[in-house]
Amino acid sequence: MRAVVVTEPGGPEVLRVMEVPDPVPGPDEIRVRVEYTACNRADIMQRLGGYPDPVRREHEILGLEYAGRVESVGDRVTRWSVGDRVMGIESGACNAGFVVTHERLAMPVPLALADDEMGAVPEVFTTAWDALVAQGGLTSGRWALVHAGGSGVGTAAIQIARAIGARIAVTCSARKAEACRELGADLVLERSPADWASALKEAVPDGVDVVLDVIGGEEADRNLRVVRPQGTIMQVGLLGGPTATVSTGLILTKRVHWIGTTLRNRPIEQKIAAVQRFCAEMLPLFDSGALRPVIDRVVDVDDVADAHRHMEADLNVGKILLRM
Amino acid sequence: MRAVVVTEPGGPEVLRVMEVPDPVPGPDEIRVRVEYTACNRADIMQRLGGYPDPVRREHEILGLEYAGRVESVGDRVTRWSVGDRVMGIESGACNAGFVVTHERLAMPVPLALADDEMGAVPEVFTTAWDALVAQGGLTSGRWALVHAGGSGVGTAAIQIARAIGARIAVTCSARKAEACRELGADLVLERSPADWASALKEAVPDGVDVVLDVIGGEEADRNLRVVRPQGTIMQVGLLGGPTATVSTGLILTKRVHWIGTTLRNRPIEQKIAAVQRFCAEMLPLFDSGALRPVIDRVVDVDDVADAHRHMEADLNVGKILLRM
Repeated sequence: MRAVVVTEPGGPEVLRVMEVPDPVPGPDEIRVRVEYTACNRADIMQRLGGYPDPVRREHEILGLEYAGRVESVGDRVTRWSVGDRVMGIESGACNAGFVVTHERLAMPVPLALADDEMGAVPEVFTTAWDALVAQGGLTSGRWALVHAGGSGVGTAAIQIARAIGARIAVTCSARKAEACRELGADLVLERSPADWASALKEAVPDGVDVVLDVIGGEEADRNLRVVRPQGTIMQVGLLGGPTATVSTGLILTKRVHWIGTTLRNRPIEQKIAAVQRFCAEMLPLFDSGALRPVIDRVVDVDDVADAHRHMEADLNVGKILLRM
Repeated sequence: MRAVVVTEPGGPEVLRVMEVPDPVPGPDEIRVRVEYTACNRADIMQRLGGYPDPVRREHEILGLEYAGRVESVGDRVTRWSVGDRVMGIESGACNAGFVVTHERLAMPVPLALADDEMGAVPEVFTTAWDALVAQGGLTSGRWALVHAGGSGVGTAAIQIARAIGARIAVTCSARKAEACRELGADLVLERSPADWASALKEAVPDGVDVVLDVIGGEEADRNLRVVRPQGTIMQVGLLGGPTATVSTGLILTKRVHWIGTTLRNRPIEQKIAAVQRFCAEMLPLFDSGALRPVIDRVVDVDDVADAHRHMEADLNVGKILLRM
């Protein structure tokens, strides 16, 4: 099969689209012919050498999510038949012609979604839902704050918050503000160095219940200022760097829960548990129309380097898909 | 009644033992004649002006815990009779002749405890159990790390961890090491600037499951280094100062839960819920002998300033009680 391989750490130019051996499914696994996969920030970090796939493979293949059709099934598989549309998250190796996955880790594709749209769902909607709802405890009536509202995770988070009856504030760059408003954000704040924290405290004086932060760095301390007592800060990424100086006094007196989370490093039973709950709680909302994938662009896999450049320049609103 | 009153922020010399009006119980409340109360670090912070009692009172009376006998009961009280031995935690005003409290917030005193011993139980055992077990999830087979092992909370934490089948490492100053070992600590580490984190990583290479930290400051980042993936850091105090620079990358990749907690600021229903569960899970262990109060000294209330000086000099192992 063809796959996007990193042979040495570096810029987008180190990416190679090359032939590698097809993966072989075990008895509880299915093999999926990938039609659409996607670029994520984690792929860029992995390309730079900073965020390795925990699974050791012969080739270091990028890609955390896939969508396509079941091509073959293992002996013990009962949930899927050849030809079914499936999508899912993996710890890596999804920018590839085939993905092999446990049958319970794959998700059915809602009928309402077109083939390209299914490629824009797994990673960002699972991440946003898991952080905001499953771990963060967001419910109707509560406020979320999400940084990078125009990103893939941000555009998913806005829709999820609206769909469950919560309210949501986002930070974003000025050029993404309109898109965030159109998706339903209740409050769109220009991101730092603008003083978004003061603006948010004025609009939501009691503080927000859950923060979903992909940035960290200087935003970490502002998160502590705007979260309400007993609120939760979900740290999902660290685009702002790997350290931060924070007011631990606010952690203590507000009784904050500051929780780091990644999907990639979880053992399979935790991934399956999250995915199964996501399927029950979120997938019906794609068919109802409450959730819809936000696609910035679809790029042929041979142009994966361009896709990386586009994401690194922070030009995308929503997902950058790769067509296999 | 007599009470320890702070009339202005300052050193131990600002403390006044003076006559103030007796508190009046409501229909669901009891009035307790206090026999023993205690000094806690929070009292020192409150005396310095930095940690106010959330309840507004005519006089600012110190004291987070009491033990004594029921003196009178409100009309709707069913759980207590005059003369019963009770003990408990409050948001303040326990360094006093009487305490008024909700009948469900008061705890019965285990038979095995002498009158002075009951004064050494409420705050430190509740705090240590709530942080380690109720919130931190410590169970048999797991490792805890507790800073300030010789403190009131530390000496309680060591015993609780042992009693439930967990293992426990503590940091402390050299002069408190022997006391920590005698109480049952599995690993006693000299505290910073000694390199306790490397020593702990060598002894417990997979990392500790729960950290109970009353210090923060420079220890905050070390906590992140020694906690295991998906472990929990309970921030219970900040003797090391109100800010810290930390490796947020470790929060993320280890999926750490960093949780701030105080008992004082909780609304009454949360306090009662914690206390009732503590009564069920921990009080029987005083009668079985698995837990015992650790009393550094008993000081007459008129000498409360001396008690504060002793605590500020970090000379105590276990509780400093005040006899009313």
